[in-house]
Amino acid sequence: MRIVDIRERSVAISRYADPAIPSGGLTTSIVAAVTDVVRDGRPVVGYGFGSIGRFAQGGLIRERFAPRLLAAADGALADTAGTNLDPLRAWAAMMAGEKPGGHGERCVAVGTLDMALWDAAAKIAGLPLHRFLADRLGRPVPERVPLYAGGGYPYPADDLARLRDEMRQLADLGYRRAKIKIGAAGLAQDLRRIEAAAAALGGAGNLAVDAMNAYNGPAALEAAAALAPLGLWWFEDVCDPHDFPTQTAVTAAYPGPVAAGEALFSAAEARLLARHGGLRPDRDILLFDPVHCYGLPGYLRIIDAMTAAGWPRQAFWPHGGHLFTLHVVAALGLGGAEVNPLCFPPFGGIGDGAIVTDGFASLPQLPGIGFESRAGLHRLFRELG
Amino acid sequence: MRIVDIRERSVAISRYADPAIPSGGLTTSIVAAVTDVVRDGRPVVGYGFGSIGRFAQGGLIRERFAPRLLAAADGALADTAGTNLDPLRAWAAMMAGEKPGGHGERCVAVGTLDMALWDAAAKIAGLPLHRFLADRLGRPVPERVPLYAGGGYPYPADDLARLRDEMRQLADLGYRRAKIKIGAAGLAQDLRRIEAAAAALGGAGNLAVDAMNAYNGPAALEAAAALAPLGLWWFEDVCDPHDFPTQTAVTAAYPGPVAAGEALFSAAEARLLARHGGLRPDRDILLFDPVHCYGLPGYLRIIDAMTAAGWPRQAFWPHGGHLFTLHVVAALGLGGAEVNPLCFPPFGGIGDGAIVTDGFASLPQLPGIGFESRAGLHRLFRELG
Repeated sequence: MRIVDIRERSVAISRYADPAIPSGGLTTSIVAAVTDVVRDGRPVVGYGFGSIGRFAQGGLIRERFAPRLLAAADGALADTAGTNLDPLRAWAAMMAGEKPGGHGERCVAVGTLDMALWDAAAKIAGLPLHRFLADRLGRPVPERVPLYAGGGYPYPADDLARLRDEMRQLADLGYRRAKIKIGAAGLAQDLRRIEAAAAALGGAGNLAVDAMNAYNGPAALEAAAALAPLGLWWFEDVCDPHDFPTQTAVTAAYPGPVAAGEALFSAAEARLLARHGGLRPDRDILLFDPVHCYGLPGYLRIIDAMTAAGWPRQAFWPHGGHLFTLHVVAALGLGGAEVNPLCFPPFGGIGDGAIVTDGFASLPQLPGIGFESRAGLHRLFRELG
Repeated sequence: MRIVDIRERSVAISRYADPAIPSGGLTTSIVAAVTDVVRDGRPVVGYGFGSIGRFAQGGLIRERFAPRLLAAADGALADTAGTNLDPLRAWAAMMAGEKPGGHGERCVAVGTLDMALWDAAAKIAGLPLHRFLADRLGRPVPERVPLYAGGGYPYPADDLARLRDEMRQLADLGYRRAKIKIGAAGLAQDLRRIEAAAAALGGAGNLAVDAMNAYNGPAALEAAAALAPLGLWWFEDVCDPHDFPTQTAVTAAYPGPVAAGEALFSAAEARLLARHGGLRPDRDILLFDPVHCYGLPGYLRIIDAMTAAGWPRQAFWPHGGHLFTLHVVAALGLGGAEVNPLCFPPFGGIGDGAIVTDGFASLPQLPGIGFESRAGLHRLFRELG
């Protein structure tokens, strides 16, 4: 039971479905982990990618983490029966020699490879990932998972009209709730964006806004005061992720839900957030990205840290917007999943042709994560060879 | 005024001067930044490396940060007179598009390139770096800088005898204070190591101990109780760098100086440390590594954050142990510099033949950082081409 080859490539990604709009320089990593397990005459290959938002990690994957997997002794990555990979043991092999602190970049590199290992292990088991993972953790699997659509990035031209179109398209696809970006163009324009999006979604209670960590202290309080009367679904990434004084001042002034944690990547930081972040477990939302947080083993530690601090699992709505997050939300019994149906092609969204009904999706049934159900993404992975 | 080429390589480094002892898998990055400024018929080249302790960053340097420097428009990296590089502007070019949070790895990659830019700029100015930097910041330059010797890693065989030899050698070289590692082999062996090292240095007041983030809460308190009566110079990196509850419990129980910050890499985390870390500005020590903290521009922000929170500059004894830190300590008026005279060859230590007298060193006078005064290191840099 070994990983015999790991292939990796960086790819450009765009916030926009429209290829005419500049992509902004974002990248992510795709990997293929080739196992020595053969099914139907071919080696089982697990696919992973670095989620979205924190750049590709090709160097760290090639130079530090893939070599540790490839060098693992025979049996060191196997489960107790010796019949499958154990992604938790593989994770320990990747993290060997890593030092405390410094939770950036490497957490994404490890998470990228970790995704491919879970894909491979679930494929070897012949189970969709949510079932494989739920069985492993002794958890029930729900029939369907609540979703919301991420998107609403500022358009360089015709912003309001295009935003309105985008939100209507999401509603037509079956989404009931969505999230848009604010914080870039001034509060007056943000309020116009919110009004346009909320109208397309049947009310501001179906709309979350994401400030992308843009505000310093006074700007955060000004925005909170302007947004408070609107009754938004949530107000996300208000300030720098480590700026707990500003976040605390905002939750003291803003009665609605505040969402945080997308740019924190470790259980160590999660514990600081729980202790000093000024958040309220009875209403606030936790966004940690399971890929960016050292993959599932790191994410499980974060869930443990936050639930030990009194947070409900329903507070977790993980960042990501893709198939992997959907499985994770289902298997771990979390609040719901972000989906990016129109952003970050070919990564955002769930299965091609998957139907969203009244804001819920049923679960993919292909073995593994099911990237093979997404033609564009599967093509990209297969180009790894 | 442009950077026309950046060359980079990863090199293995060892905690031990003795090449027979396994090096433990540590690496660092070396870079050469070639400018379009010609002196004595040749382009001025700045050299930098990734300090020690956090792995090489070749991928991030090649794929993300060097390309931004190389793509900078003509004049975008120049000072106001247009006659030299401005490393602060170059830093802004490197950080363009970087997101808040995630302070690991990239901070080392940026710091590595930043070191080369300061070396190049000081060479273009014809000044040793401490003078170039002090002039820029309007600060005085001292005649000499207080030092201590880092080292004292556990030896795989004959630990106590070799440790004693190492400490005697450091005393013979002119060091009065030194630091050794604890936390790996149990408290009883640690106390024997401390006794042996302290005897060679003329007393425990000249000895700091570094637990390398090894202790959880109960182990940290047990160690603190055992060390408190010894009167050590300081007790370093007690627990996980983000485990502020344990650190706070230790400072409540341990009257002597505690040192922290080596594994925190950003001003955002420094502010959390100041607010929640349980440290005491009247006695505790701040170890932030100027290279690992996004280079000098990041380190200056950390100094600003900590001095605004009531910390004196004398509390800063930066991690690193090499020539660059010596210049930084001198130019910024910090407490003193770590030097690794016997570890991490050829990176540790100050100039070849530089004389340490009673724990102080005078300052290097070559233009730039003066890596050219270290034969082994200069050879390594020149192999970059």
